[in-house]
Amino acid sequence: MTTPTAPTTAATPGPAPAEGAPPLETGLLAPVWAGTPAAAAVSDAAWLTAMLRAEAALARAQARLGAVPAAAATAITATAATATLDLPAIARAARESANPVVALVRHFTAAVAERDEQAAAFVHRGSTSQDILDTATVLVAGHALAITRADLAATATALTTLAHTHHHTLMAGRTLALHAVPTTFGLKAAGWRHLVLDAIAKIDHSAAALTVQLGGAAGTLAGYLQHAPGHHEDYAGELTAAFAAELGLGAPLLPWHVLRTPIADLAGAAAFVCAALGKIAVDVLSLTRTEVGEVHEGAPAGRGASSAMPHKRNPVLATAIRSAALQAPPLAATVLACVPSEDERSAGAWHAEWEPLRALLRLAGGAAAQAAELCTHLETDPARMRANTALTHGQIVSEKITAHLAPLLGPARARRLLTDACTRAAATGRSLRDVLSADPAFTAALQDTGTGLDALFDPAAYTGAAAALTTAALSRPLPAAPAVLSRLCGAPERSG
Amino acid sequence: MTTPTAPTTAATPGPAPAEGAPPLETGLLAPVWAGTPAAAAVSDAAWLTAMLRAEAALARAQARLGAVPAAAATAITATAATATLDLPAIARAARESANPVVALVRHFTAAVAERDEQAAAFVHRGSTSQDILDTATVLVAGHALAITRADLAATATALTTLAHTHHHTLMAGRTLALHAVPTTFGLKAAGWRHLVLDAIAKIDHSAAALTVQLGGAAGTLAGYLQHAPGHHEDYAGELTAAFAAELGLGAPLLPWHVLRTPIADLAGAAAFVCAALGKIAVDVLSLTRTEVGEVHEGAPAGRGASSAMPHKRNPVLATAIRSAALQAPPLAATVLACVPSEDERSAGAWHAEWEPLRALLRLAGGAAAQAAELCTHLETDPARMRANTALTHGQIVSEKITAHLAPLLGPARARRLLTDACTRAAATGRSLRDVLSADPAFTAALQDTGTGLDALFDPAAYTGAAAALTTAALSRPLPAAPAVLSRLCGAPERSG
Amino acid sequence: MTTPTAPTTAATPGPAPAEGAPPLETGLLAPVWAGTPAAAAVSDAAWLTAMLRAEAALARAQARLGAVPAAAATAITATAATATLDLPAIARAARESANPVVALVRHFTAAVAERDEQAAAFVHRGSTSQDILDTATVLVAGHALAITRADLAATATALTTLAHTHHHTLMAGRTLALHAVPTTFGLKAAGWRHLVLDAIAKIDHSAAALTVQLGGAAGTLAGYLQHAPGHHEDYAGELTAAFAAELGLGAPLLPWHVLRTPIADLAGAAAFVCAALGKIAVDVLSLTRTEVGEVHEGAPAGRGASSAMPHKRNPVLATAIRSAALQAPPLAATVLACVPSEDERSAGAWHAEWEPLRALLRLAGGAAAQAAELCTHLETDPARMRANTALTHGQIVSEKITAHLAPLLGPARARRLLTDACTRAAATGRSLRDVLSADPAFTAALQDTGTGLDALFDPAAYTGAAAALTTAALSRPLPAAPAVLSRLCGAPERSG
Amino acid sequence: MTTPTAPTTAATPGPAPAEGAPPLETGLLAPVWAGTPAAAAVSDAAWLTAMLRAEAALARAQARLGAVPAAAATAITATAATATLDLPAIARAARESANPVVALVRHFTAAVAERDEQAAAFVHRGSTSQDILDTATVLVAGHALAITRADLAATATALTTLAHTHHHTLMAGRTLALHAVPTTFGLKAAGWRHLVLDAIAKIDHSAAALTVQLGGAAGTLAGYLQHAPGHHEDYAGELTAAFAAELGLGAPLLPWHVLRTPIADLAGAAAFVCAALGKIAVDVLSLTRTEVGEVHEGAPAGRGASSAMPHKRNPVLATAIRSAALQAPPLAATVLACVPSEDERSAGAWHAEWEPLRALLRLAGGAAAQAAELCTHLETDPARMRANTALTHGQIVSEKITAHLAPLLGPARARRLLTDACTRAAATGRSLRDVLSADPAFTAALQDTGTGLDALFDPAAYTGAAAALTTAALSRPLPAAPAVLSRLCGAPERSG
Repeated sequence: MTTPTAPTTAATPGPAPAEGAPPLETGLLAPVWAGTPAAAAVSDAAWLTAMLRAEAALARAQARLGAVPAAAATAITATAATATLDLPAIARAARESANPVVALVRHFTAAVAERDEQAAAFVHRGSTSQDILDTATVLVAGHALAITRADLAATATALTTLAHTHHHTLMAGRTLALHAVPTTFGLKAAGWRHLVLDAIAKIDHSAAALTVQLGGAAGTLAGYLQHAPGHHEDYAGELTAAFAAELGLGAPLLPWHVLRTPIADLAGAAAFVCAALGKIAVDVLSLTRTEVGEVHEGAPAGRGASSAMPHKRNPVLATAIRSAALQAPPLAATVLACVPSEDERSAGAWHAEWEPLRALLRLAGGAAAQAAELCTHLETDPARMRANTALTHGQIVSEKITAHLAPLLGPARARRLLTDACTRAAATGRSLRDVLSADPAFTAALQDTGTGLDALFDPAAYTGAAAALTTAALSRPLPAAPAVLSRLCGAPERSG
Repeated sequence: MTTPTAPTTAATPGPAPAEGAPPLETGLLAPVWAGTPAAAAVSDAAWLTAMLRAEAALARAQARLGAVPAAAATAITATAATATLDLPAIARAARESANPVVALVRHFTAAVAERDEQAAAFVHRGSTSQDILDTATVLVAGHALAITRADLAATATALTTLAHTHHHTLMAGRTLALHAVPTTFGLKAAGWRHLVLDAIAKIDHSAAALTVQLGGAAGTLAGYLQHAPGHHEDYAGELTAAFAAELGLGAPLLPWHVLRTPIADLAGAAAFVCAALGKIAVDVLSLTRTEVGEVHEGAPAGRGASSAMPHKRNPVLATAIRSAALQAPPLAATVLACVPSEDERSAGAWHAEWEPLRALLRLAGGAAAQAAELCTHLETDPARMRANTALTHGQIVSEKITAHLAPLLGPARARRLLTDACTRAAATGRSLRDVLSADPAFTAALQDTGTGLDALFDPAAYTGAAAALTTAALSRPLPAAPAVLSRLCGAPERSG
Repeated sequence: MTTPTAPTTAATPGPAPAEGAPPLETGLLAPVWAGTPAAAAVSDAAWLTAMLRAEAALARAQARLGAVPAAAATAITATAATATLDLPAIARAARESANPVVALVRHFTAAVAERDEQAAAFVHRGSTSQDILDTATVLVAGHALAITRADLAATATALTTLAHTHHHTLMAGRTLALHAVPTTFGLKAAGWRHLVLDAIAKIDHSAAALTVQLGGAAGTLAGYLQHAPGHHEDYAGELTAAFAAELGLGAPLLPWHVLRTPIADLAGAAAFVCAALGKIAVDVLSLTRTEVGEVHEGAPAGRGASSAMPHKRNPVLATAIRSAALQAPPLAATVLACVPSEDERSAGAWHAEWEPLRALLRLAGGAAAQAAELCTHLETDPARMRANTALTHGQIVSEKITAHLAPLLGPARARRLLTDACTRAAATGRSLRDVLSADPAFTAALQDTGTGLDALFDPAAYTGAAAALTTAALSRPLPAAPAVLSRLCGAPERSG
Repeated sequence: MTTPTAPTTAATPGPAPAEGAPPLETGLLAPVWAGTPAAAAVSDAAWLTAMLRAEAALARAQARLGAVPAAAATAITATAATATLDLPAIARAARESANPVVALVRHFTAAVAERDEQAAAFVHRGSTSQDILDTATVLVAGHALAITRADLAATATALTTLAHTHHHTLMAGRTLALHAVPTTFGLKAAGWRHLVLDAIAKIDHSAAALTVQLGGAAGTLAGYLQHAPGHHEDYAGELTAAFAAELGLGAPLLPWHVLRTPIADLAGAAAFVCAALGKIAVDVLSLTRTEVGEVHEGAPAGRGASSAMPHKRNPVLATAIRSAALQAPPLAATVLACVPSEDERSAGAWHAEWEPLRALLRLAGGAAAQAAELCTHLETDPARMRANTALTHGQIVSEKITAHLAPLLGPARARRLLTDACTRAAATGRSLRDVLSADPAFTAALQDTGTGLDALFDPAAYTGAAAALTTAALSRPLPAAPAVLSRLCGAPERSG
């Protein structure tokens, strides 16, 4: 028996554009993903293509096991790779069955019949809508996450460079909006990188979710078995394995039609990507503020321009990323809320997953693309960073001075002395050093210690373990992508 | 001075289709709104049109006040009504400014210049991106909600008919999944209608949110005043009023660029629509179950068909509506989470509103369209409803019998007697009447009361105030639509 | 017939403290509401009290209509006002019935029996758990929102003062993290006030939600009718009205046991309060930053202290308010997601409302208390505000200069000139005025216009309609509280 | 140098009950967790205890490294293990610093001073609020998840038994509310178990999140280093390792004060537990419905009783679990939304995590306790399951018959024949077998095949791979708990 093979080129059918229909969504309201490869990867066109790939793979898998003639599987595969189906018509028809597969099968069967009348009888054989749509979802999500991962890797690489470059760049550490104690920009960048690696780890973990769905009408595969040659006991497992092999995906232990862990995991990974990049974005926005001015987004001509104010060079990439971080968590909540899917297929919970999952993948892919751009071209101003550490007139090292005085005065008295001095300094605008130097308790305490005041008040001398932590953080490697992700993404596109 | 007028036809420019780009979203994954008028009303094309309408209205408003030549306003208006702009290109360019208006103004100005070189100088005069986008959002949202409201009104009308028809149709009242006491289908339908009227009230309340946004770069209207003839004190108010009048919207007391109540209200109204219709959907699904069989969705040929099982006639409309109800609340949470917009324009919180608001409007519009269809064609089975009230073999009136016995036996003893009898009936499969009739305590208690057992055990005699409540509920009128909604929606389209 | 009356003192029973049990929640993890009156108003103890009030009011209402003896209602009322029930035991027992009312009725009936054996038979007569719990929820929520409203009113008053005081205080308007154009602090405070008034309006609107729930086992009031003297047609309506009158609440058109608009409205109002106050909080945090320093939280001794750094005076009130704004929207989403309650009582959706609603009321009440404190004692630094407007070296008025040059050079050329000048100024650190003054195109354009450069570059001369808008905003009155809210709250406590 | 050791008994101080204060929360509104061990494990009292444990462990760790005298660490440890602090006072004071640690340190230092005046100087040495609170959070969360895991393991064990017992128990598979094709109850139970194992895997994965937090004021550990003897380079790492060792937790690569992956992971695991158990709950509710009657919750005396209806035996455990599943996802969204924490400590995002995380842990722990009870005592009715498969009068095998006829008639004709027959059967109430047997096309097609009609129409002969899938699912083992979880939980309590 000859087994049909997948087409050597990853040919994807170009569904016909919607004639006459106004474009529903082009990214006009989504600067974070408009025009990114990830957005294209999760388009309706991509989902349609993936459903056709699933139908073709199913036919080939059945052909491997003798349940479908090899010629039929070949014809089905060829049609899937080249047919131009009417996407908007299929979308509209989805209303009649609450999912797009019924109409897709009708249109696709007709297309197969045009090529090979016999083969048409073998389309979607023994199958059910959910097997096709869920498997397509996994293909689409895996592709999108692979693209996203590549952009996250580029982001991590850029952050490695930033952390190295600024290993010792002094800056103010800020807590609850105020200068706290000094830190370094290197440690900040290393922390960002750490989060990006966490995000990559979530994507890699979700690779386990990239398994085919194959259960038939209610998860027993009865429909497939009905068409199996000889009904042997292992057929269900063999068919699942063959289907998975055709698509380069994993084979699950059980059909997951109502065991939605894989979908929850994909959504969770995408949401975490947005959240992690959101941390970078809010930091960049904080450091970009006019009064702070420590970093600036790299700005090719025109970027960040305002429609009103010629002087503006808005931090548009960070803004876009933050907008994704604000949108993602509730979408992930929706997907999680659909895990309690009643019976063998929920009337609604399954259907409520699709759009939020797509939205999450799109936001994550877009945010990663912007983050790669942002981090690769981030402009830093070390002089301004250093200058800003002086804004509190020495109070940024109040903790250090308290600690220094604690053994000399007792901790409670030391703290009281510093609290009073800081209050006085803030009220008068004088430097903490001046205020303390005028305080007899302070001078008496230090008298015999030989402490140099310059060193004591130097922010650069109070960065603690920042440098060591940066080194430690950078020792964490960027792992290789899981094989299944690489398979889903050929040479993963980078977004410009 | 001649004042330019809005075109008499509500001409809306048809933005060019995305040449070559694969359709990102057509409704393929959204059976609830695919192909509905509401989905078209909130399309990117619609938003682009609305932004152009806002630009044109602004020019006309400024012309009214002498800040822009009348001829320029006329040219700008004419161009807005007819220009074909490159929507996908504008969408892609939005990334460079984190909003689509900067590119839109560039493209639109060029289009105006082609028609009238002089007029181009007056496009977007003194304006800012947010004034245009926010105002366009209000136009789009108002239009979508007007369509939604029309479908809700149709739903309410259908439910009025159902409630009248089934004013006295006996059915089981169910709580925590079990038969509780009898009720009527009329009361259930009247309750659904009540919720739909609540949803309409939310939409009508949100009409107050339909005001133009006009604040300029940071909410002071300084840019507009710079171009005002004579800088008089009231110019800002006059311009706002004129802008609002041109668009048929309200004029706000303050610019709401960072006071986002209007957006939160629009989102809240849309989310409530989905939630309210979700109640109808879960009830329909509950009553449709194979074992219950009391209602069925009306099914034109092919609707509800399964890709696997020829006997299935799936409740696809209720399923789609429920999927909307599951998706809407978290989207509304996102919009509410954006109310804390820092400064005079948030770097991200503004941007995170757009897609969730659109998604909400689309879900609400789609759900309302499906609900109108569902309720208009819902098939009921009163015989099955009545038959099901007998499934507990009389236990459905256990509350009544307890109440009847309470004065005779004392409430505690009456309750104990019934609890024991119900337990015995459930264990043996006998009817409650048989079990009780064999209980000397029961027969003794009733002995002298002349109570007829038939009446005592008749579920139809224990529907309480169901009929009166139904009448009361139906007395609540369907209110007329607020003028602003009617204006935004000409003759509001009904979805098929 | 004598009708029992409500006790003249609003005596509320003090449920016994949990002997031995460790405190589950005291506010340790909730700085925003720890120790506030609102937190006490929504405590379990308060809910228990409210359920007892509902039971007593039901008995009195039934007594009014002759369904319960007056003496029994009096005994029930007296017991409700004084009994000490075992709250933790009732809480634990709730597990057995999935709600606390079954156990409450058992404990309460025993307490009534101790006082008056006859009366015990009339406790919870014809009633159902949901009638008691829902009505108690409305009482508790109304009380909490009344407290919250009082704090919002105090907040608005403080903001009125701030807006008046700083009617003309110049400050930088900031968009996307950067200085945009000048504005005033008065306008900012007036905007905050506007949002607070919007929040008050939401609370007042939710007063319509403050109706009793009365439906009996499945919404037909059959149980109550069973005990009605003479079964007349209007009994259901009369009982509902009497029950409402006893509690000072409204009477609904229909039982809302599964028509959850009232609960959704209460949750929505509370969530909006948090969101609106969150806007104030993020602005205060933005202006408090060390580098900005334009406002400071008023700090009584010890407030804002850090455990590590003696110089810190953290913006703790704004931080706490922001934490509420971050938590509230998803909680409101949960409540909205429970609107689709299947059948005549949901198995789960009803139960999932309780804790999120309480959490929302607590967050709103706490945030309002902190906001009143924050706004009443906010310290401003007008000199710093003015000084900061100079940070861009004149670029903050680039829009104005562009507008000024537009008629002289054409808008495109004017914009290009300014864009180039701003870029040059930013690169060299020179002021925009210096850069432009050195530009022949600029000087030529202005040559004959007699424009004074000082006025042109003065930020204070470019605040647009800020003053007029502030005046307009302050004209919006603080409305009187709805009667039902005042009733629920005696003299509403203010939080310290 | 002697190193102080942790007390051999895990003595936990019993904070004083709130004298006079009304209990804020006892579980009255939370049947799902009221009275469960998990609720106690995440109480405020538990959090306070954990903070004291963290302070003590920090002192011992510093003592190990010579930064604190051994005697002081011993005194601090002893005080932490026995002191009775005023929890409500600390909670109220948290408002002044936006976290409870500042007041805790004050109270605790005073308590230490009472025991050992010298030691008091070494409390919280070099530390910061976040190190103590975050580490306490990890201790509390780990303990709660360990309890939850034990209940999940018990649930899985019960489900293993159910799946074995019902390996071949025929039941209807249901999709979109309707009978689809047959399945087995064994497969359903095996699927539930699979989800429970997925939930356990999430908890085990989150064990990686159980690391101490140690960063000092802004993540550089500068404060600790200031007190280090000799400032050697590795001190930061050594201190972190020692602190972790004292508490039985892991040591992180970096302080995670603003890299919130650990918190997001803990929240995600807890939310997934609720969602997974929610699937079991909705299935149980579906199968419990009066009309279905295939399963019943085991009911000890009184459980499931209604306050109104003596016959009710409500599915209260499933109801409670479902209420947790409805509440959890939005809470997880809040925690994820806090990942974008600006700067070195967010003003609000950190603070917004605490209550939602606690709520999630409580819901997960409660749901797991109820699930263990539910699954251990679930009553099944195999006869009713089998009987229900006949409700569609044979249509439940329509897929099989279509497949059988497909090779004989062609798939399209076969499908059309069945669709027509099913429609006719549904309209007339006749069985599908009768309708088909009267159809000449059907009888002709089968004529020569020797197919027995009994076998063809027997639902039990169409369960596909259900049995094999059940076997496969049960082969997945229950993994051993990660060591860190076992450490945190001694002999993990089981909830009754």
